[in-house]
Amino acid sequence: MSNGEDAITGWFAEQRKLPEDKFPIGIGDDMAQVCPGGDGSVLLTTDMLLEGVHFDLESATLEQVGYKAMAVSLSDCAGMVTRPLAAVVSVALPGRFGQDELKKLHKGIIKASDKYDCPLIGGDITVWKGEGGSVVNSAMLSASVSGKPLLRSGAKVRDCICVTGRLGGSGEGKHLEFQPRLAEAEKVASIAQLNSGMDLSDGLSSDLRRICKQSNVGAVIEEQFIPISDEAERRDDPLKSALCEGEDFELLFTLSETEYEKLKSEWNEPLEISCIGRITEDKDIVIKYKNGKVEPLPAGGYDHFRKSEKS
Amino acid sequence: MSNGEDAITGWFAEQRKLPEDKFPIGIGDDMAQVCPGGDGSVLLTTDMLLEGVHFDLESATLEQVGYKAMAVSLSDCAGMVTRPLAAVVSVALPGRFGQDELKKLHKGIIKASDKYDCPLIGGDITVWKGEGGSVVNSAMLSASVSGKPLLRSGAKVRDCICVTGRLGGSGEGKHLEFQPRLAEAEKVASIAQLNSGMDLSDGLSSDLRRICKQSNVGAVIEEQFIPISDEAERRDDPLKSALCEGEDFELLFTLSETEYEKLKSEWNEPLEISCIGRITEDKDIVIKYKNGKVEPLPAGGYDHFRKSEKS
Repeated sequence: MSNGEDAITGWFAEQRKLPEDKFPIGIGDDMAQVCPGGDGSVLLTTDMLLEGVHFDLESATLEQVGYKAMAVSLSDCAGMVTRPLAAVVSVALPGRFGQDELKKLHKGIIKASDKYDCPLIGGDITVWKGEGGSVVNSAMLSASVSGKPLLRSGAKVRDCICVTGRLGGSGEGKHLEFQPRLAEAEKVASIAQLNSGMDLSDGLSSDLRRICKQSNVGAVIEEQFIPISDEAERRDDPLKSALCEGEDFELLFTLSETEYEKLKSEWNEPLEISCIGRITEDKDIVIKYKNGKVEPLPAGGYDHFRKSEKS
Repeated sequence: MSNGEDAITGWFAEQRKLPEDKFPIGIGDDMAQVCPGGDGSVLLTTDMLLEGVHFDLESATLEQVGYKAMAVSLSDCAGMVTRPLAAVVSVALPGRFGQDELKKLHKGIIKASDKYDCPLIGGDITVWKGEGGSVVNSAMLSASVSGKPLLRSGAKVRDCICVTGRLGGSGEGKHLEFQPRLAEAEKVASIAQLNSGMDLSDGLSSDLRRICKQSNVGAVIEEQFIPISDEAERRDDPLKSALCEGEDFELLFTLSETEYEKLKSEWNEPLEISCIGRITEDKDIVIKYKNGKVEPLPAGGYDHFRKSEKS
């Protein structure tokens, strides 16, 4: 989701205020939190993938689609530093598909389920009358690792803004086979105290804006520090791809400089972590280009209501 | 889901056995149960509604569609005698729709959410490129009322088979505005000890078969006792409508004769409860017609893989 969608989901959130004791985290983070009573709590997310929007069956196998459906929700779990518990998956298939296609989809779902220890515990199967596009929806439960899921709203002035991996060009193939950063999120959070975070699903430009809006802060990022993927480098505008293409499914988080130094010195995983800028008191969200110019961060990221940007 | 779908979901369940301590109830009931640790547990279900299959936008308003999306999952909660905790809803909309349509859908979701005390805590909004059909998926969490959710697998030989309300003809309008039997399920279970149960979503013929299969028993039901709705009476074949049309969203449950007598004497709600037959040791599932003939219960109910029966 992105700008137009943020507006409508913000409107939804305004319609009914949730009681905070039972729902400490509601609409507006990667997952919502439910305290059913007692001392436990669970987090819940839902993600819908559409044929022709999030995957194409000419370039993706059904197994890849099944994997992706799980992986996008697993990435939500990672974004809040939570551990997946279980998933249910609903599918809509065109009339020409049957059990063979379902088994292929299932194979991909199970591949992610096994790899990230998130059992598939139920689902729903529906079939279009005629030739509707395929739809796969995953709903996933997770549990907080530390007792306190990482929120978008905790960014503090002067925080370092960090991302994992390299950004952009996901449409070349990564978006079908990415590795949700579950273990890495836990590792980062075990080394350093994070102030805010989320997974990068709609592009750095959109997602950083969400952190800033919910934390009531601004940000300055520097072009020279943005890690651009090889796939993005081959695009006409690599920087734009890294900022706006979306579906990176990397981690975006903020933490104090002291904590960042600690993280940098103790981090020994192959996944790279880049500090790309700072949180500012000033609410503007800007980018400092390599030529020294400072300008507002270009709006972008994938917005279903704008229907643009995405290849 | 129904027969062809039962085969594939059965196959899914065979692929990965869930550890019973963490997942006491897996694929095969209205909801699956997750024990995240500690003494608590939650149940999770997911239901997908498709335009042209579960609703038509010529005859249903978007508000009704939103209501129905929540109500089908609420009915799953009722079928297992559990209390809804929270829901997340994903939608796919055709390109011509915008925020106005989303607000109408949301109004229906909130209507059900408020009425049955099940807050909407999150969701996902996607838009087809071009003119795909609308899709609404609800995923819902619930908690057991008694500590032990009612399963399909507990039916005992000589149990009375009961249904609430009147069956058939739901396509005339009930399927859009039905009342999930949450309070009634709790009331029934507070009066009498139930052995098995579920909600009637695909038609008595399909759903009774599921109870029998999972309980490893048979059943005999009697035409004379089947409560047929006024809408079904106006169909060419009212009995077939009551057995096979589906989307009744009433309760189906079994209990011993003693418990049934207790229920009958203490039940003072307007909703009628009918005992329509008995569970048998013999695995056959038969119907005794008014003319005295006893025959196998006609297969039927809505099966997405057969694409028939449903009006």
